[in-house]
Amino acid sequence: MKIETLRELADKLEKVKNVTILTHTHPDGDTVGAGLGLCRFLRSRGVKANVKNSDPFPAIFEFITKGYRDEDFKEETVISVDVADTKLLGNLEEEYADRIDLCIDHHYSNRMIAKQSYVDGDCCATCLIIFEVIKLMGGKIDPITADCLYTGIATDTGCFMYEGTSPSAHRAAAELKEAGCHAAAINREMFQVKSLGRILGEQKVISTMRFAHGGQIAVITITNDIMKECSIDRAELDAFAGIPLSVKGVKIGITLKQQPEEEDTFKVSVRTHEVDASALAATFGGGGHIRAAGCTIKGTAEEVREKIIAEAEKYV
Amino acid sequence: MKIETLRELADKLEKVKNVTILTHTHPDGDTVGAGLGLCRFLRSRGVKANVKNSDPFPAIFEFITKGYRDEDFKEETVISVDVADTKLLGNLEEEYADRIDLCIDHHYSNRMIAKQSYVDGDCCATCLIIFEVIKLMGGKIDPITADCLYTGIATDTGCFMYEGTSPSAHRAAAELKEAGCHAAAINREMFQVKSLGRILGEQKVISTMRFAHGGQIAVITITNDIMKECSIDRAELDAFAGIPLSVKGVKIGITLKQQPEEEDTFKVSVRTHEVDASALAATFGGGGHIRAAGCTIKGTAEEVREKIIAEAEKYV
Repeated sequence: MKIETLRELADKLEKVKNVTILTHTHPDGDTVGAGLGLCRFLRSRGVKANVKNSDPFPAIFEFITKGYRDEDFKEETVISVDVADTKLLGNLEEEYADRIDLCIDHHYSNRMIAKQSYVDGDCCATCLIIFEVIKLMGGKIDPITADCLYTGIATDTGCFMYEGTSPSAHRAAAELKEAGCHAAAINREMFQVKSLGRILGEQKVISTMRFAHGGQIAVITITNDIMKECSIDRAELDAFAGIPLSVKGVKIGITLKQQPEEEDTFKVSVRTHEVDASALAATFGGGGHIRAAGCTIKGTAEEVREKIIAEAEKYV
Repeated sequence: MKIETLRELADKLEKVKNVTILTHTHPDGDTVGAGLGLCRFLRSRGVKANVKNSDPFPAIFEFITKGYRDEDFKEETVISVDVADTKLLGNLEEEYADRIDLCIDHHYSNRMIAKQSYVDGDCCATCLIIFEVIKLMGGKIDPITADCLYTGIATDTGCFMYEGTSPSAHRAAAELKEAGCHAAAINREMFQVKSLGRILGEQKVISTMRFAHGGQIAVITITNDIMKECSIDRAELDAFAGIPLSVKGVKIGITLKQQPEEEDTFKVSVRTHEVDASALAATFGGGGHIRAAGCTIKGTAEEVREKIIAEAEKYV
């Protein structure tokens, strides 16, 4: 059943008891922040609540996860936050997939099977939904809860840089700062600091950059050798896909990632400016969003690069 | 004379006529945005106004400067925006230094000699002051004026990333978006796109990075050879000073820049996390702010690096 309004969502949350909150695998700032933020809010109202994830929370989120401890109770309500598909529950899928009471999410593509779902695809972060429902319920936001919610809003908007960043995201940030959140420290951790491995890896990867079509197409290649040599963490790899599109004049930025198990298979990430990335990826059986999509192509690095460039040239 | 409140500033602006607005040399997003934003606002109220700068506006601000044309009138009022010192008027200093009627600025260090000055050192951008005074005056903000003001607020806060980013900066961003500003396109131009020269230059410069004190001090060196080889624009160099401090664990990030005319002179930029940068720079006769300071040291690159590291080690 669909929940249409924040008011209805608030009414549901007023009644929950002994809550398990589920977050998604490969946890990002939005799922961790929404899970912990909602958990802290419920606990502040005397409701017992825990957060569960198939993976341990990444160390980069330590500033919000470090104070968290599980409580002991008999679970009655299961809520998922920022989980777009039951598959994304990882090893909790079997246990929980068919008994989620309430799904709270901001992905258009949400396919979660829950008894009740509140999905706002126009909202730039699940943390923003949690923020707004807490306000509607008259809840007070303490500095740590503010840190949780700010983390999700900041990470899902690229620190307020991306197209989808709404006025309400900025207004929430203003209120969370007033509630005592440590925005500058969080921003430093999330957006400014890089591991030395990542910096050296970027340097190597930039040296593989090739241009086509008068500089409108740029391709970088991340080989397994570079991964090993620079000891790049797989979790840090996502950010690399933004590099080719950051070059002035580039409209299609392509990143080839050699797969660890299959040397002749490359995961291809396509990021675009003014061009339909999902259409390009679809030519190779892939898909995604209009400005960020992906596919898989077999061959040597050179072959894969030639194939994707030949197709990309039809788009610029 | 000091103007203490926004209300007083609004009262002054109600009375201005035939206005020349002065911006500072090496124009940044805040001075350009504040100058053009105020100019457009005054013109919308039937006041004749022009913006003047000692340098041409940099091409990166074309999206807000392209529609601007000088008007023809006999100047009666001179206003400076974001200009902290008469020296920063460049070649307009002689003509204007002693006849500025109104100074609007957000630098604590403001030393501008004007008949009347409104300086709010706690405000994160001059564009934010302009935004607030326009609102107080009941002005309507059109999409291009919104672009001007958003540019200054975004650039002076590092896209809402820096410590000084206030709740009011976020609230202004929310309203400017509602007024039709093209935030995502501006952010892309200001924060995401880099010239190929800059990217290749960064790559070369990263290869000069040296660490000391268990990775808490990092030093990069930008030689004249690298500048030439990668054809890096001098205007893009400022961003390089952030590189050493972006490495995880680094508390003192140091950038040595060889001077084009004097091969044995290096401008040293010090950026810190938890450490007093201005005290370190002062040891070498320099100065600045607590987290960003600079000085000049003579010697070969190796000698300068040794000297600054030896001193920096006393601070970690």
